[in-house]
Amino acid sequence: MLTIKDIARLANVSVSTVSRVLNDRPDVSEESRRRVRAVIEEHHFIPSNTARDLVRVNPDTIGLIVRGMQNPFYTDIILAIESALEHAGYTMVMRQIGFSDNEIEAGAVMQREKKLRGIIFLGGRSDYSPEELARVSVPYVLCSYTNACGTLDKSAYSSVSICDEDAARDAVEQLIESGHRRIAALVAGTDDSTISQLRYEGYCRALREHNIPLREELVFTTGDSFAIEDAYHAMDEALTRTTDFTALFAIADDMAIGAMRALREHGRAIPDDCSVIAIDGIAVSEYIHPMLATFCQPKTELGTKSVELLLDMIEGRGGHRQVILPTTFRAGASIRSI
Amino acid sequence: MLTIKDIARLANVSVSTVSRVLNDRPDVSEESRRRVRAVIEEHHFIPSNTARDLVRVNPDTIGLIVRGMQNPFYTDIILAIESALEHAGYTMVMRQIGFSDNEIEAGAVMQREKKLRGIIFLGGRSDYSPEELARVSVPYVLCSYTNACGTLDKSAYSSVSICDEDAARDAVEQLIESGHRRIAALVAGTDDSTISQLRYEGYCRALREHNIPLREELVFTTGDSFAIEDAYHAMDEALTRTTDFTALFAIADDMAIGAMRALREHGRAIPDDCSVIAIDGIAVSEYIHPMLATFCQPKTELGTKSVELLLDMIEGRGGHRQVILPTTFRAGASIRSI
Repeated sequence: MLTIKDIARLANVSVSTVSRVLNDRPDVSEESRRRVRAVIEEHHFIPSNTARDLVRVNPDTIGLIVRGMQNPFYTDIILAIESALEHAGYTMVMRQIGFSDNEIEAGAVMQREKKLRGIIFLGGRSDYSPEELARVSVPYVLCSYTNACGTLDKSAYSSVSICDEDAARDAVEQLIESGHRRIAALVAGTDDSTISQLRYEGYCRALREHNIPLREELVFTTGDSFAIEDAYHAMDEALTRTTDFTALFAIADDMAIGAMRALREHGRAIPDDCSVIAIDGIAVSEYIHPMLATFCQPKTELGTKSVELLLDMIEGRGGHRQVILPTTFRAGASIRSI
Repeated sequence: MLTIKDIARLANVSVSTVSRVLNDRPDVSEESRRRVRAVIEEHHFIPSNTARDLVRVNPDTIGLIVRGMQNPFYTDIILAIESALEHAGYTMVMRQIGFSDNEIEAGAVMQREKKLRGIIFLGGRSDYSPEELARVSVPYVLCSYTNACGTLDKSAYSSVSICDEDAARDAVEQLIESGHRRIAALVAGTDDSTISQLRYEGYCRALREHNIPLREELVFTTGDSFAIEDAYHAMDEALTRTTDFTALFAIADDMAIGAMRALREHGRAIPDDCSVIAIDGIAVSEYIHPMLATFCQPKTELGTKSVELLLDMIEGRGGHRQVILPTTFRAGASIRSI
């Protein structure tokens, strides 16, 4: 294990410069920052904090790492996880990371700093290698994400999620059954190894099953964000290029709400000019106008089941499992039959 | 300090019954539950957990107690608090309580169980007595709520909030300036010692300043809830009694969105038949149709400033302060001049 002194030597900078980089201080030259980061990355160094390291192991502490906390869909899941852990006598420590952050890195750091017993990853990506995942040495559960398209064998991880691909296929099928064939999709990315990719694949499958050719110009992406404002901007931009669709499948309720504003601003009434459907079932989507048709995830159960799996592993009652929970269709006024 | 055995003896029940009551298990008779609770209340007993008590003091752990976690307004504040604490080398442990729970009780229990250094209360009530508040012996900050209408002297507590009464007055004044005089209010309660009461008082002040008589039949309450579904139901019910208003002031964005659905379902178009304004500025209210006019709270700053005040106290840099942050008006299409 490297010390800060080793890093300073390898990066050819002072110890205080390393410390400033580790603490994300602005008073460091870009060149020094780059050199320190290169050494850190090369050696998989995890910053240590003397004061924190003196605290003993916390036998009851579980970490929750949330990717993209602002996602309103997570609120009820976090509530359920916190309650279930509390009820079982554990303490939840939460850390929020950005859409493009590395959660395995965050988990490895948090595990060490907070002396965790286990980790629940909420949201996330699946393209980590077994070597990367091995850096997290405590039990962990992937919540609202299954590693199905990742590189791990089913015997090597635990997850609780819906079947994202099926839910997306079902959502697009609702549109097809209402007579739509020119169906656009609003996704984060199509190959980003997140639920966005899984839901995009469900969209493609529904089209394929109904012999509707996939038209790439009708697939709108935000980049890597699930945020409402980015969905709005992506849709706003897309509508300057094409309006040749009668329905939109958005991979998340919040993104659908952002898209609906862009549609209205471009003079496209919902559902008269464009039907909209999504997946998630957040509270507010039942109150907007028109009410959003969506496939609801069992939010509370996603949280409680994740805790159950994690505690089974920690307390020696069970090994790895992948739990798939069902979604429920909630009809809305955002779909019109044509 | 009482032990569980003492409580069992005083309540004249078995030790296992006391344990079941403490763990909120259903398999206890109402009579036993009542007796155990009476003893606990009389003696201010705080349940102990042997395993947890063996953990040493956590010098870096800060508790966050959130009243009504589902409130989307809190998401960004929690994010800001977590980031600021993390940056300063502290660990945040969060607990969520219901709208009608006692947060001081929750704080006292959490302080002991988690060996906290300090507490941030997010949301909350102000009618606790100095004796009750004394049960929390670590430094604490009231975030998004000031104890101004409570029983504490300003030298005895710290808070970071907007001026809720002014924000409500300003919101109602926007409606009055647009020609409205028959203005309804949707609140949680009018005398519940929460921000609802403060905002209700701002509503009354605006009417008074413009010589508009307060009409009690135009004040709609949910009881104690700020939840979107309860706002919807309260508004739905109110509209069966009266429609004699041209504008609605809702004390929170989320409640306004619930109310807007009820208005539409009762055939009242927004803003043509009823203008709507609120306070908070949650993300989604900028995307709904029509866009909601609202007074935005500085969410990130509420969080970071709360952490700053708390750490100043913990680390000996300062005593009690009350910080009032400004709101920003965001225009929307939900208001019509008449």
